[in-house]
Amino acid sequence: MRSTPVAVSFLFLAGLAGVASADEGMWMPQQIPALADRLRALGFEGEVQAFADLTGQPMGAIVSLGGCSASFVSSQGLIVTNHHCVQGALQYNSTPERNLLVSGLVARAQEDELSNGPGSRVSVTTQVQEVTDDLMRRLTPNLTDRKRFDVVELWTKERTAACEKDGSRCRIASFFGGLRWFEIKQLEIEDVRLVYAPDKGIGNFGGESDNWRWPRHTGDFSFYRAYVGPDGKAAPYSKNNVPYRPKRWLKVSPRGASPGDLVFVVGYPGATERLQTYAQIEDMTTWQLPRSIRRSVEQLQILDELAQSSPEVAIKVETRIRGLNNGLTKNRGVLEGLIKGGALEDKMEQQGELTAWIAANPERRMLYGDVLPALAALDAESAKTRERDSVFSGFRGGRGGGSVLGAADTIVEAAVNRPKKDIDREPEYQERNWARTREGFERMQRTLDRTVDRAFLRYSLLEAARLGGTERIEALDRAAGLSADMSKDAAAKAIDAYLDRLYAGTKLFDKDYRLALLGKSSKELAAVGDPFLNLATALLPLKDQLRETSKTRQGARYRLVPRYMKALLEKSAGLVAPDANGTLRVTYGRVLGVDSVDGLFFKPQTTLAGIVGKHAGEGEFDVPDREVEAIKALRAGRETPYLDPALHDVPVDFLSTVDTTGGNSGSATLNARGELCGLLFDGTYDTVVADIVYDPVRTRSIHVDSRYMLWVLTEVDGATRILEELSK
Amino acid sequence: MRSTPVAVSFLFLAGLAGVASADEGMWMPQQIPALADRLRALGFEGEVQAFADLTGQPMGAIVSLGGCSASFVSSQGLIVTNHHCVQGALQYNSTPERNLLVSGLVARAQEDELSNGPGSRVSVTTQVQEVTDDLMRRLTPNLTDRKRFDVVELWTKERTAACEKDGSRCRIASFFGGLRWFEIKQLEIEDVRLVYAPDKGIGNFGGESDNWRWPRHTGDFSFYRAYVGPDGKAAPYSKNNVPYRPKRWLKVSPRGASPGDLVFVVGYPGATERLQTYAQIEDMTTWQLPRSIRRSVEQLQILDELAQSSPEVAIKVETRIRGLNNGLTKNRGVLEGLIKGGALEDKMEQQGELTAWIAANPERRMLYGDVLPALAALDAESAKTRERDSVFSGFRGGRGGGSVLGAADTIVEAAVNRPKKDIDREPEYQERNWARTREGFERMQRTLDRTVDRAFLRYSLLEAARLGGTERIEALDRAAGLSADMSKDAAAKAIDAYLDRLYAGTKLFDKDYRLALLGKSSKELAAVGDPFLNLATALLPLKDQLRETSKTRQGARYRLVPRYMKALLEKSAGLVAPDANGTLRVTYGRVLGVDSVDGLFFKPQTTLAGIVGKHAGEGEFDVPDREVEAIKALRAGRETPYLDPALHDVPVDFLSTVDTTGGNSGSATLNARGELCGLLFDGTYDTVVADIVYDPVRTRSIHVDSRYMLWVLTEVDGATRILEELSK
Repeated sequence: MRSTPVAVSFLFLAGLAGVASADEGMWMPQQIPALADRLRALGFEGEVQAFADLTGQPMGAIVSLGGCSASFVSSQGLIVTNHHCVQGALQYNSTPERNLLVSGLVARAQEDELSNGPGSRVSVTTQVQEVTDDLMRRLTPNLTDRKRFDVVELWTKERTAACEKDGSRCRIASFFGGLRWFEIKQLEIEDVRLVYAPDKGIGNFGGESDNWRWPRHTGDFSFYRAYVGPDGKAAPYSKNNVPYRPKRWLKVSPRGASPGDLVFVVGYPGATERLQTYAQIEDMTTWQLPRSIRRSVEQLQILDELAQSSPEVAIKVETRIRGLNNGLTKNRGVLEGLIKGGALEDKMEQQGELTAWIAANPERRMLYGDVLPALAALDAESAKTRERDSVFSGFRGGRGGGSVLGAADTIVEAAVNRPKKDIDREPEYQERNWARTREGFERMQRTLDRTVDRAFLRYSLLEAARLGGTERIEALDRAAGLSADMSKDAAAKAIDAYLDRLYAGTKLFDKDYRLALLGKSSKELAAVGDPFLNLATALLPLKDQLRETSKTRQGARYRLVPRYMKALLEKSAGLVAPDANGTLRVTYGRVLGVDSVDGLFFKPQTTLAGIVGKHAGEGEFDVPDREVEAIKALRAGRETPYLDPALHDVPVDFLSTVDTTGGNSGSATLNARGELCGLLFDGTYDTVVADIVYDPVRTRSIHVDSRYMLWVLTEVDGATRILEELSK
Repeated sequence: MRSTPVAVSFLFLAGLAGVASADEGMWMPQQIPALADRLRALGFEGEVQAFADLTGQPMGAIVSLGGCSASFVSSQGLIVTNHHCVQGALQYNSTPERNLLVSGLVARAQEDELSNGPGSRVSVTTQVQEVTDDLMRRLTPNLTDRKRFDVVELWTKERTAACEKDGSRCRIASFFGGLRWFEIKQLEIEDVRLVYAPDKGIGNFGGESDNWRWPRHTGDFSFYRAYVGPDGKAAPYSKNNVPYRPKRWLKVSPRGASPGDLVFVVGYPGATERLQTYAQIEDMTTWQLPRSIRRSVEQLQILDELAQSSPEVAIKVETRIRGLNNGLTKNRGVLEGLIKGGALEDKMEQQGELTAWIAANPERRMLYGDVLPALAALDAESAKTRERDSVFSGFRGGRGGGSVLGAADTIVEAAVNRPKKDIDREPEYQERNWARTREGFERMQRTLDRTVDRAFLRYSLLEAARLGGTERIEALDRAAGLSADMSKDAAAKAIDAYLDRLYAGTKLFDKDYRLALLGKSSKELAAVGDPFLNLATALLPLKDQLRETSKTRQGARYRLVPRYMKALLEKSAGLVAPDANGTLRVTYGRVLGVDSVDGLFFKPQTTLAGIVGKHAGEGEFDVPDREVEAIKALRAGRETPYLDPALHDVPVDFLSTVDTTGGNSGSATLNARGELCGLLFDGTYDTVVADIVYDPVRTRSIHVDSRYMLWVLTEVDGATRILEELSK
């Protein structure tokens, strides 16, 4: 299936932006042809139209893993992504006796490839279509905010249903804060298996110490394989499934990337917030980030202690610890960038310019004059209950948390939604998501642990116990016997007693039991009397109330934000990439070092020599002995095609100016010939704030060089089967 | 007085060494003229002979502070050195209410200049004369090792006495391990006063975190002034003393140093060990350094705890903590360089080459064939009791420690030596050192604290208690009631009880009491019955025994090492600088960045921007508010002559390839015109191992740029009096 050409009508008001900031932008594929001049200037000799052809070469090879990006690299459905993107698969297949999180996996034969378990998905974007006008026809001017929300939601549901009729998965995604809308169609493969992961000492070399840092020496790559039913169609895991044969796959270049090279990164960046207002960034700076940092530190303390209690628990919490640490370091970097790096000041200045630009002209005043004040009022309103709202949303344990209370909440809400017509259900409880919910219940078993779950719920309950008098969660106070005037000790005592009751009485740690409850009605659930179901039910009225408020506010944002964006874009008068929103994007740049802090220059490449320098034989810097031996052999004269003639060594990682963010992890880094010359896996600490305020000078992404991947496969792991497949 | 021209006869076997390693060398001043070609190649246009003229410009301006280097920078005896070299003076003048260690000092008038206390010295080398032949006449071939030591010692004493007849201070120093000997004459000034020290937040910006590191932003400079009696002659501190008027002083350049500039460092490097044998370096790697690192860590723990007990104790231990930390980091760096950096392997290779070179020729075999095996045997012999010998030497608390047991030992040994003829006394107890000993007793009062002293003696006693059966210190076992078969707890208990007795009974914490005991005879001391005097007396027989052994071994070294050096020098066939030995040296190099670890380049300069980046407003990164304001003013357009046009900022520190080591701290960094363009204050962590095995590619020294010094004096501290004096 070829993609339908999209009518590109982005705001081409004054051609391209200046050179300094020209490499900013996680571009929608269809925007790339308009960047032809810039790409030519950077030395691109290929066909720019190719990027807009989603099923052609190379775009047809790019896939999403949900939270990570990846790409096909063989005709047999072999997929390359980051080592840190296959943590779930490693965890799912690990036992204390055979801990793949540590040893990695080299599947020497196809039957050694290990299922990533239920809920794994490989998604390929096959079609992107602008649908803004269709929505605009429905959005009549005098809708209330609440009603506007419903109109958008109903329209989204209807379009999604129509789009998915052919078996695809569809998403109606908003760009530029609702100024433009696109319908995105994806093919989904459900049977994903782990083929290769290096030793942790390679794949996570440097651990948290090096995370977000340069110089870097991480071999952050791994391989999956997509499987489909014998009929070639997507199917859940089955022994009878066969490798998927993609129409497009990338050639892995044996030449990697060198300083100055033009490179593209194609993947699924998650979220940036560059187009937010100053007030929002300020709230992030003064409240959200400090709160998040504090919580991460406290929760890591809890997890570190628990991890020491047993090897089983250690395996269960490892991914969560890695995730929390990762976010913590990133958030610290963002906060530093906002405050010390001056990004917050820059934002204030930008907004000042926008305000002045609006004020400078009567027509603009009329069109946009009320927008910023109205958005500020909306934010101020939200801020009033932000503490309680955040504590409340923390109860479910977060998306990755997979808590038992979260499961109970899902069961209770599913029961409330099931009797309704599908179109009237809350989106997450629509029929299209039922399988996903069940898979989620299965997957959470990987990380579910009674002690950990309790420790985290206790943490949330203690937060709730500290809430001020006007922000109390009354249902919870009743259930746990808490009140605003209790001492800290008394509250903790009451909470521990309540937790004793909750955990003694629940059967929700049993996977099959949880799954069985998913089909039950509210009445039946009430009869079951599981204490977690009771708690979730008691919390439901507040949840509904918060959802109602949120819908009204979102309706207001649908009214205001598109006008704010219009003003911004009109003022910037150039081609602008929308904020990342988890949809397919292309970014380009050059392999380039950078001035880091005063007195320090980050060279664009690292080599095996640096691994030798950092290798400590233990802890976070501990490559396997066979890598040490392989390096010795190389030094002793063993030949390899992956030696860089300028560096006189095998390159490991490199820096580039491409503009990426979380979700881009595992993205193919393409050279000017469309070959995979590396894998994006990180950004530099100095520039993580670019998610909020882009820094055109210092922003750098970090990639693993394809030569290091091939060298490790060859010299360290002797992974001949994969190497042969890649060379075909 | 002009220096007597020295007959330079260094081994000019084949001209200069190759370019790569040409900048190695802490050269004796008289060697510099022979380096003219190399200096011309580096762009030097001045008169190379000037470096050999010790009383001319610039050499006449260079002084030693004992452990640090410095230089005159005004006609009124103003001296510039490092902030970390004036710690003792800051400590001596600090109280908890007025802690100069933190606030620094700006003496606004001459009467605000503060005495550095008794024992301060500024030394100017006035004459260097080779005296090797004179010794050789006395060293007849068939002396026993023990006798050879005595001949050298007696000769040293006689020459020293003759040299000091004119009131100078003299030293007969051995170079190339006793292959060559020089008589060095110094003028000593005894009244030294503190004129200026910046806030700790400037002078020690970055603290231990940045120590030995790059990028660096430390304003490590301070000013002393030398005072003499109204007759112009050196005299101890007196209110009537007047500023010394040196014949030579350096101009402080307002232009600092820029990348590529040729710079000289002139000062008093303490000790390098590049010419040692592989066996010695190996012992250092496997035993000395690990032991020293472990002890530093343990002692720092003790000091950190004690420092928290009171502000008085904190002031007393601050210099010691800084010193221990400094040494710890350096030793770790050296060890890393030796093991991971491959320096030990390089040394083995070098020695292998030397062995092969000796073996390749019958004459060489005859001349040098026995030397390396004999030296190895000597080292093996020492190693047998190294544990006990080190524990024993630790009792005095180390040179800087100033322990009460050390004082008792000095008192007891002084009594033993006093009845002898001066020429027969142990050198440290000869009359020429009596005033120094008394000053030492006064100075130690600055840091003396009962709790700290006890904690350190306890540490040493616990070490002694752990010694194996054959290495026991019997006198101590008897005194403290210890034995080899005691449990750890029992030993600790016995030690604590013994310490109770020692500290309850001693009066040695009283300065005047200590000084009074210095005049007493052994018999009188025995009658005093102070428990520390008793302990020192009990330990004396073992001390004498160790001294005897050490003299015999040193006699053997006088026999062997010169031949080893001769072989080394003959083989290297070039001009070689002797190892540093605390005598005046000149080193040169270029301002140059360097590749650090893989992926990282150290740029050659840092700027104020980096201070803003690191400034945290607390802890080790905390410049005073007035510096923050001064930087803001600069950014807002305030003009300064110290702005670097290429950097668009005021430079702070810079890197150069000059070859330096501890003792060089505070050394003048001269530009090609002989002006002071910076102050040497550190080396990079990557290259501290250069003290043992020189790295011609990566070795870098760290300097503060004279522009930062002048900018701080002007914009931060408004030190107009000093600025005016400097500009004269």
